[in-house]
Amino acid sequence: MQKIKTIAFDADDTLWVNEPLFRINEEKFDSLLKEYVSHSDITEKLYQTELKNLKHFGYGIKGFVISMIETAIELTNGEIKGCDLKKIIDWGKKQIDHPVNLLDGVEEVLRILKNNYQLMVITKGDLFDQESKIARSGLADYFDIVEIVSEKEESVYSLIIEKHKLKVDEFLMVGNSLKSDILPLVNIGAFAVHIPFHTTWVHEKVESKDLIGKHYVELADIRELLTLLK
Amino acid sequence: MQKIKTIAFDADDTLWVNEPLFRINEEKFDSLLKEYVSHSDITEKLYQTELKNLKHFGYGIKGFVISMIETAIELTNGEIKGCDLKKIIDWGKKQIDHPVNLLDGVEEVLRILKNNYQLMVITKGDLFDQESKIARSGLADYFDIVEIVSEKEESVYSLIIEKHKLKVDEFLMVGNSLKSDILPLVNIGAFAVHIPFHTTWVHEKVESKDLIGKHYVELADIRELLTLLK
Repeated sequence: MQKIKTIAFDADDTLWVNEPLFRINEEKFDSLLKEYVSHSDITEKLYQTELKNLKHFGYGIKGFVISMIETAIELTNGEIKGCDLKKIIDWGKKQIDHPVNLLDGVEEVLRILKNNYQLMVITKGDLFDQESKIARSGLADYFDIVEIVSEKEESVYSLIIEKHKLKVDEFLMVGNSLKSDILPLVNIGAFAVHIPFHTTWVHEKVESKDLIGKHYVELADIRELLTLLK
Repeated sequence: MQKIKTIAFDADDTLWVNEPLFRINEEKFDSLLKEYVSHSDITEKLYQTELKNLKHFGYGIKGFVISMIETAIELTNGEIKGCDLKKIIDWGKKQIDHPVNLLDGVEEVLRILKNNYQLMVITKGDLFDQESKIARSGLADYFDIVEIVSEKEESVYSLIIEKHKLKVDEFLMVGNSLKSDILPLVNIGAFAVHIPFHTTWVHEKVESKDLIGKHYVELADIRELLTLLK
């Protein structure tokens, strides 16, 4: 890792808390729907709707809100009350406006790395929401480049590296998602550091067989990056 | 305009049809709501909800869908039926997946200008939706740079010009919205060409007093750009 010149960070659940906010709303959704139906798999139904809607809406809270409304209508055969749907919309707004809570050690690590590396954010999801979170995080000044993308695939990473005239073997990506932040980078010949977060959306999970032969580093805490890069 | 090296185009209603798709859904929404309430100002109520929600959702179809649902619940005091709300979600999906219909002359003009200028797209709205439209438009190869932004303000344009190491007095923006595509550019010292579209969202309208003393060119058809730049 001596050659590394650019370090790119995923944002959600790498720099700040994100997934738990979805989980909280999923739990509220589950409780709300249980007033109408006796299904035990409400969250699974919601996930199926989200998956089906990804091709229309992409990632992000707005699509999540629409998927919750759609699932609620479907599971209750249209019997769900307007005031309950209004609650779902309000949960979404509250989630979007939620304070950005940095993960432990993030700011300290960025401050130190900034002296020796070009720093980037590469995050996927809703443009408006991600821009707002970067601004509210107070971290914007640490980053030379911010890239908000709709999907994190090999081709997208290759394009970013090319666009900024970087070299793939001088590039390190740090993130919590094996699927989005690690495997695509390993596959194009870049470095990758995986820092697992305690909560992972099922859509971001990968099977262990997909990890065979893949070279990346796993750290428990972002502060360990400093030791790794010494 | 002899000095111009870069021409940036707005996308929605400059390169392809967009606003009429919102109008169609607004009309459907109006008809649907009239089955419940006798209001004559349903569209106005929807617009007020959209405005109020801009700070949560930003621009784009997903926010529009949530605003329609919220307005429907509010205007019917929660009496709107689930199957009718499902219709609204389906209109939104249909709008997102709608074929991209290029405006007359667009491809011809881009093909010619490509020989002598660096071409860009600067569009605001939903990242996922805008990327999909650019891909489906078949125009992607004409553009050296694509910038999808959440708001079109002077500071955003200045940042784009700086980021790509361009000069403001060599930069021309072409678009249909005086508010988003013309005034911010004129105010930072760039060139701007306004090509009005027959339908403009009320949020994009500017008062005539705001145009006093502003220097920009108005064209009726994108093909007139070729004459203007000769």
